[in-house]
Amino acid sequence: MAKINSNYGKLQAGYLFPEIGRRVNEFSQTNPDAKVIRLGIGDVVLPLPEACRDAIKSAVDEMGTIEGFRGYGPEQGYDFLRNAISKDYTDRNIDVRVDEIFVSDGSKCDSGNIQEIFSADSTIAVTDPVYPVYVDTNVMAGRTGKSDTDGQYDGLVYLPTVEANNYEPSFPKTPTDIVYLCSPNNPTGTVLSKEKLKAWVDYAKETNTLILFDAAYADFISNPDLPKSIYEIEGAREVAIEFRSLSKNAGFTGTRCAYTIVPKELMGKNDQGEDVSIHALWNRRHCTKFNGVSYPIQRGAEASFTPEGKAQIQELINYYMENAKIIKAGLNALGIDTFGGENAPYIWLKAPQNKGSWEFFDWLLETCQIVGTPGAGFGSAGEGYFRISSFAIRENVLEAVERMKKAI
Amino acid sequence: MAKINSNYGKLQAGYLFPEIGRRVNEFSQTNPDAKVIRLGIGDVVLPLPEACRDAIKSAVDEMGTIEGFRGYGPEQGYDFLRNAISKDYTDRNIDVRVDEIFVSDGSKCDSGNIQEIFSADSTIAVTDPVYPVYVDTNVMAGRTGKSDTDGQYDGLVYLPTVEANNYEPSFPKTPTDIVYLCSPNNPTGTVLSKEKLKAWVDYAKETNTLILFDAAYADFISNPDLPKSIYEIEGAREVAIEFRSLSKNAGFTGTRCAYTIVPKELMGKNDQGEDVSIHALWNRRHCTKFNGVSYPIQRGAEASFTPEGKAQIQELINYYMENAKIIKAGLNALGIDTFGGENAPYIWLKAPQNKGSWEFFDWLLETCQIVGTPGAGFGSAGEGYFRISSFAIRENVLEAVERMKKAI
Repeated sequence: MAKINSNYGKLQAGYLFPEIGRRVNEFSQTNPDAKVIRLGIGDVVLPLPEACRDAIKSAVDEMGTIEGFRGYGPEQGYDFLRNAISKDYTDRNIDVRVDEIFVSDGSKCDSGNIQEIFSADSTIAVTDPVYPVYVDTNVMAGRTGKSDTDGQYDGLVYLPTVEANNYEPSFPKTPTDIVYLCSPNNPTGTVLSKEKLKAWVDYAKETNTLILFDAAYADFISNPDLPKSIYEIEGAREVAIEFRSLSKNAGFTGTRCAYTIVPKELMGKNDQGEDVSIHALWNRRHCTKFNGVSYPIQRGAEASFTPEGKAQIQELINYYMENAKIIKAGLNALGIDTFGGENAPYIWLKAPQNKGSWEFFDWLLETCQIVGTPGAGFGSAGEGYFRISSFAIRENVLEAVERMKKAI
Repeated sequence: MAKINSNYGKLQAGYLFPEIGRRVNEFSQTNPDAKVIRLGIGDVVLPLPEACRDAIKSAVDEMGTIEGFRGYGPEQGYDFLRNAISKDYTDRNIDVRVDEIFVSDGSKCDSGNIQEIFSADSTIAVTDPVYPVYVDTNVMAGRTGKSDTDGQYDGLVYLPTVEANNYEPSFPKTPTDIVYLCSPNNPTGTVLSKEKLKAWVDYAKETNTLILFDAAYADFISNPDLPKSIYEIEGAREVAIEFRSLSKNAGFTGTRCAYTIVPKELMGKNDQGEDVSIHALWNRRHCTKFNGVSYPIQRGAEASFTPEGKAQIQELINYYMENAKIIKAGLNALGIDTFGGENAPYIWLKAPQNKGSWEFFDWLLETCQIVGTPGAGFGSAGEGYFRISSFAIRENVLEAVERMKKAI
C-alpha cells in the first residue's frame, strides 16, 4: 500500500472556514427563518467589472476562429498581461520587469506553492494571527513538528502581531530563512508603515532572510504614505518576493487570476553553498507543475489595467471601503475597539466584555444573526479578537450595524 | 540566504520542448523563407466548440449581475460540472461518484501535484519513454538521485515500453509503491488492451501498488474493445487514480480544465502503519494549495458534456484522427514503421536508416521543414524513434506528407 506523506497527519482537523460553515448551518437549521448576514469569509459580492467581462467574451469569440484560436500559452502568462502589470508598477516608479512577473490562478496557490522551491529544513517565521495557508503548506512539506494546545506548530517561529505592538511584528529572536509578511494584513486589516517595512527590508538584508510579501489587498490602501508594494523600499528586490491578486480589487475570486513577482536579484544557496537564482527555480516549478492561466481570463485581467478597468475597480473598492467605514463607526459608537478597516477591507475588533473569539462568534450569530470570523482561528494571538469583512451588499452592512446597536 | 531545494539541481537542464524551440528558431533564422510545419508539441489548433464558447460567455454575463455573480466556488469544482462528469462515466456503466471528482486547471498540474501526498521515500515506477512531468516532479520532491548518461535517474524504476514488448510494459522487477501509466500513451500513441490493463490492476492489488492512470487522451479511442477508463476493470477502484482532461478532446489547452478521480476505496499507510484515505489527503491538498477553476470555464466544461458539446467534440476528434490516418499511411508508403495513431492522436515511428532521434529531427527539419519530437526526449528507450502529432490543420498535414515523399 502506498506510503502517504505523514506530515498531513499533523494538520489540525478543522480548518477555520469549514468549522464556521458547520456552526452557521446548525444555527440555520434550528432557526430556519433567521436572515443570516455573512461578514465572515473575505469573498467579494459585487459584479465583475464590465471592462473585464467584455474582454473575456471577446477572447472567447477569438477562440472560435482558426486564426484567433490559442492553445497552450506561456506558463508565465502572456506578454500582453505581463506588460500591463509591469507598466502598473513602473507608472508608480517601481522597478518590476516583465520577465519577473509570473501570472497564476491565485495568490493562495502561489503563496502555498512557493515553499516547494526551498530546502525542507528551512526555518520559517509567520505572524500570529496569520493567513492559514502559509502555515499549512509548510506543515504539509514537513517543516514543522506537531502542534501544541495553542495550535502552534513546533519548529515554526511565530511573530505576535497584536494591539500591544501596534500590529507591527518584531523581528524573529533567532535567525530564520524565510518570513511571511502580509500587508494590508489578513486578518487584522492593518498596514505596515513605510518605516516599518524599510526596517524589515534592512533586517532581511543584514540577516539573509527572504521575505514572502503578500500584497493581495494592496489596492485597498488609500493613504499615500503607506507602501502598496515592498519594492517601494530600496533594496527590497534583493530580499523579497511579492504576491498580488485580482481577487479582491477586481472581483476575481471566482474568475481566478493573480501574479507573483520574483526579482532576478534574489539568490538562494544550494546544499553545496553555491548561489542559485530563485527566479530560475520558481520558473522551473511554474513550468513543470502549472500550465498557465486560461487565455480568456488573462484578457479579462489585462482589461483590469486599462483606464476604464481601473475606474471600475476603484468604484468597487470605494463601495467596500464605505462599508468598512460604516461598520467601524457602528462598532466604535458601541464602545468596541477596532483596528484596520481604513486601508484594508477587514475590521479587526476586540470582542466586548472580554469574550473569547468563538464565544463572541456564537453570541453574534445567535443574537444578531451575523457571521464573522473568530480571531483565534488565525492563531492563538488572535484570541479575544474578531474579523469582520466589508465584502457585502450595503443594505446588509447597514442592517448588521443596526442589529448590533440593538443587541449590545 | 534562503536554502533552496537542492533536488532542483538534479533536473536535466534542457527540457525537451525548449530545446526543440531553440533548434527551430535557429533554423528559421538561417532560413527565413522556409515554411515550417509544426507537428511537434501536442497542441490543438481547431476552434473551441461553439457549445463551450456560448456557455462561457453566458456565465460571464451572469457574473455581471449581483444575483448571478459568483465568488469563491468549491475547490473541488461546482456540482453542475461534477454531476456531468459522473454521468459521463455512469452512462458507460462505470462507477465514478460525484464526490470522487476533483475539477482542476489541468492534468499536467494534477499528475505533477499528486506525488505530494505520498511519502518522500516512496518508490516510483515510470514507463520509458514517459511524459516528462511524472519524472521531473518526483525529482523535485527528492525521490531520486542524480541522472546517469542515459538521462535515467537513480532510484526510479523504468519500465521499457517499446516495439519489442508491443508497447505493453512489464511489471516492475522489484516491488514499487506507485506506478504511472498513460493510455492512450503519450508519446507512443499506443493503447493498453483490456487484458493488459486487467493484469496491471490484478498486479497492483496483489502487490499493494498504486496506479496513477493518465487517460488524458481517452476520447481518441474509437475501438470499442479498448478501455477508455481504468475503472472499466474490476477492482481498479481500490488501486487507481485516474486523470482526465478537456485539453485535447474539447480543445481546452488554452482554456484550462481537467479532472481527477480519486475513489474513496483507495487507502495508503502512514508512518504508524495506519490506513489513511487517499481521497481525504488529496482533498486537503487541493483545498489548501488550489482555489478552484474559474467559474465561466467550468460552465464551458459542463457544456462539453451536453449532446451538442459531445457532437462538436466528436467532429474535432474525427478531424485529428483523419490527420493521423493520412500521416500514418504516408509514412507506411515510404516503408517507415509506425505505431499508435489509430486510437490516439500521436504517431510513433522508427526513424528510417537507423537514424538517431535527434539526428532524424534535424534531418526532417532541414530537408522537409517539418518539426516533430525526438523519441529520445521522452527517455532513453525512445532513442531511434520519433513522435508526430496529428494536431494540425489538414493542409499542413497533406503538405508534410508530400514533402516527406519527395525527400525520403
